[in-house]
Amino acid sequence: MILHLAWFTWQDDVTPDDVAELTRQLTEMAAGIPALRQYHCGENLRLRPSEADYAVAAIVDDADGLTAYLDSDAHKAVYDRILGRMVAIRQAAQLDIGAAG
Amino acid sequence: MILHLAWFTWQDDVTPDDVAELTRQLTEMAAGIPALRQYHCGENLRLRPSEADYAVAAIVDDADGLTAYLDSDAHKAVYDRILGRMVAIRQAAQLDIGAAG
Repeated sequence: MILHLAWFTWQDDVTPDDVAELTRQLTEMAAGIPALRQYHCGENLRLRPSEADYAVAAIVDDADGLTAYLDSDAHKAVYDRILGRMVAIRQAAQLDIGAAG
Repeated sequence: MILHLAWFTWQDDVTPDDVAELTRQLTEMAAGIPALRQYHCGENLRLRPSEADYAVAAIVDDADGLTAYLDSDAHKAVYDRILGRMVAIRQAAQLDIGAAG
C-alpha cells in the first residue's frame, strides 16, 4: 500500500472559513473515491514549529490507485473550486507502507 | 490520535547506503518506543514530482505521545548518529486523525 502525503502553505488571504470549506469539500470528495482506503485532511496542529498550514494523508493500494485519486474529476473539481487559489506552496511525497494500511 | 508527518530533502553527499542505514536505525528505534502506534519511514516513491527525498509517518495517541517519541533518547541518538548530517531541509506537520489510527 502507498501513503500519499501532501502539505500546503496558504496564501496570506486565506481565511478560517476557507479552510473549513476546503476540509468539507475534501472529505466529501474522498468519500466518493473508491481508490482511497483511508483519507485524512486538516490543519497542521503545529505541535512543533512548521511552515505547513494544512496536510493530507491518503492511503491507496498502489500507483494506479494514486492516479485514480489524484487525476479524478472530483479531485480536480476541489482544486478548481477552492484549493487552487488557496495554495502558496504545495509539496507531496509517497511512502511505501507495505501491507499495513 | 495524531499523525505526525516529516519529510526531508538530503544534502548532496548523501548516499543510498546512508539512506538504507538510516531506515534500519529508524525502524529499530521505532520498535523500542511504546508511544508509537504505527511508524513508517522510507524514500519518497516520487510517483509525482517532489523535492522531498524521504518521509516519515508516525501515529501517536496525543501530544504527550508525540513528545515521548520526538524527545526520546532513541530518537535523538539516530539524529546525532546519522540523520542530522544528512538533512538539508526538514519539515513536519501533525494531523488529527480522530480515533482512526
